[in-house]
Amino acid sequence: MEQITSFNPPHRILMGPGPSDVPQRILDASARPTIGHLDPEFIHLMDEIKQLLGFAFRTENRLTMPISAPGSAGMEACFVNLVEPGDKVLVCINGVFGNRMVENVNRCGGVAITVDDEWGKPVDPQKVEDALKADPEIKVLAFVHAETSTGVRSDAAALASLGKEHGCLVIADTVTALGGIDVRIDDWRIDASYAGTQKCLSCLPGVSPVTFSDEAAAKLSNRKQPVQSWFLDMNLVMAYWDDTTAQRSYHHTAPINALYALHESLIMLQEEGLEAAFARHKAMHDKLKEGLGGLGMEFLVEPEYQLPQLNLVCIPDGVDDAAVRNQLLEEYDLEIGAGLGGLAGKVWRIGLMGNSATEKNVNACVSALANIIE
Amino acid sequence: MEQITSFNPPHRILMGPGPSDVPQRILDASARPTIGHLDPEFIHLMDEIKQLLGFAFRTENRLTMPISAPGSAGMEACFVNLVEPGDKVLVCINGVFGNRMVENVNRCGGVAITVDDEWGKPVDPQKVEDALKADPEIKVLAFVHAETSTGVRSDAAALASLGKEHGCLVIADTVTALGGIDVRIDDWRIDASYAGTQKCLSCLPGVSPVTFSDEAAAKLSNRKQPVQSWFLDMNLVMAYWDDTTAQRSYHHTAPINALYALHESLIMLQEEGLEAAFARHKAMHDKLKEGLGGLGMEFLVEPEYQLPQLNLVCIPDGVDDAAVRNQLLEEYDLEIGAGLGGLAGKVWRIGLMGNSATEKNVNACVSALANIIE
Repeated sequence: MEQITSFNPPHRILMGPGPSDVPQRILDASARPTIGHLDPEFIHLMDEIKQLLGFAFRTENRLTMPISAPGSAGMEACFVNLVEPGDKVLVCINGVFGNRMVENVNRCGGVAITVDDEWGKPVDPQKVEDALKADPEIKVLAFVHAETSTGVRSDAAALASLGKEHGCLVIADTVTALGGIDVRIDDWRIDASYAGTQKCLSCLPGVSPVTFSDEAAAKLSNRKQPVQSWFLDMNLVMAYWDDTTAQRSYHHTAPINALYALHESLIMLQEEGLEAAFARHKAMHDKLKEGLGGLGMEFLVEPEYQLPQLNLVCIPDGVDDAAVRNQLLEEYDLEIGAGLGGLAGKVWRIGLMGNSATEKNVNACVSALANIIE
Repeated sequence: MEQITSFNPPHRILMGPGPSDVPQRILDASARPTIGHLDPEFIHLMDEIKQLLGFAFRTENRLTMPISAPGSAGMEACFVNLVEPGDKVLVCINGVFGNRMVENVNRCGGVAITVDDEWGKPVDPQKVEDALKADPEIKVLAFVHAETSTGVRSDAAALASLGKEHGCLVIADTVTALGGIDVRIDDWRIDASYAGTQKCLSCLPGVSPVTFSDEAAAKLSNRKQPVQSWFLDMNLVMAYWDDTTAQRSYHHTAPINALYALHESLIMLQEEGLEAAFARHKAMHDKLKEGLGGLGMEFLVEPEYQLPQLNLVCIPDGVDDAAVRNQLLEEYDLEIGAGLGGLAGKVWRIGLMGNSATEKNVNACVSALANIIE
């Protein structure tokens, strides 16, 4: 075999649906010397990460930690732990990730009931209420707070409240939400949530913060049959991550350096403050809207439901989707996202996530699009 | 919440059962700027990683790629994809990881049949042959090539050959083997294998190289029911990783920077050459044996079955296991591993994996133990 040489990635401006621009400070943290996953210094780091995630999720949940795999595995961790064969789960679908939730329910042997809303619209709480009333056997309600495929924010507080009124465990996808818009796990009574690191935390992709309420933890310890995934079985993961266990026991080898990075990214969020981070995302979103509006471009989503961190822009008539994205990448080192599913070819997904939500990026994006399209 | 500050890990010498010492060159690679998981430059990197893994595994298997999660998930990927409910699986147990395989079979709804050998002994091929003859319905044979809990090398070639003679798919755990001792996926006709990055590749923990033969791929595409894990469903993962697909489609967000690191570690293995790497592990193992022998210390495993990369040393009578390990860590910044399960308190696990297999490390370990124990 021919000798392969080291990889030197280009310096991209990441304005797609994630990963977002990773600050040098986080890259530097990730490259510090690797230590053992049972080293007392590492256990201390784990405890700090749990505290910091509690801060980001606004929760006191003891079971708050990162899953050692990407957001898709975070989603799976929530479903395989909380859904047993035969359990009815109400899944709200208004984009790709609602569909993925249904896949998860099916593969757990659960029974998925769905409420469907058009892609680009939020989940309709009235439909959810009707569905919950129609079937009192529904045990779990699942929805996506910030839909990465459509740029829509649904009303997580209202949806979770409906779920709790009807005795459900509530699972919320906060992959694209966390750090970009308000997420209040405890106030809203969300029982399980999974987030992403490579979105509004501007961290490396590869791990997924999760949190489970006491009610979810009770379900976990009272399961009739074992969790179908050994790797994602929270009963086992807890033995390694739970701070009330005096002696941490080995479950799997944690992704040490990825956790250095997560720790640093959460410290940066703590330094900035949640409200300030949300305000920055909102301000950059407004600036982007103004800039793209000046080019005559329209947003897919009604203003009330727009995510500041992920902007779905309708591709103007006569403009070649792929050609423009390629030109942005090749000539401007700027990545924006393509549409998914039924929105492919119709929209671009422009991310302003975490460290990508800066004036410099907004200006770069608007001026590049102006040059290419006009 | 009090402001948490950045983490600065100590510089440890890692001589436990993994992670091993990560070369600065790999840390540097991991900290290069993050790019998108669908960026053409990243797709090119993925293709090179597949080639390099083919080299390391000595395989032409098209389905050769890293799973985006640690070795435990690599194990799970092999089982959930290849075992369907009711399938009989013969699992060879001679340590912790054989037991974990049984857990995986059970959680797939498979029927585990086991052949057991004492911890510290290799898998006995005669027992395997007897078991395969006794039950022609066995569809899968699974064993651990290099047992990380005991430091034992089993005869992978002989075991795989027995499995194939009896019409089984063969799953081999090569987590601790890959890069440290010879692994020949194609020559030995192993159908599925998963490895670790943080062992003899001296890379960051967090991803797990896997490979599947054409026969395994056929089983995959002819399953009667979907794989129970969405995240680990190779039918879906292939759409992202498979080089014959013209347009890669999004499955999950790859751990970009962890893959920069894996790529660099495999390049380093290619530069050194497999045979040279194996010889280095063997030479350092011999040197460690000589040094520890001089201290009157004995090895748990018979010489014929000793893994050069993981040395199980009996703790001398009257020596306090935990106290010595703590002293090594605190005064010498040197990590060695504790015994697991029935071997806890009886042995130390001294790793000479990848970049940790150096004269400097052997000398540091032997002299530190001499100072502490004598």
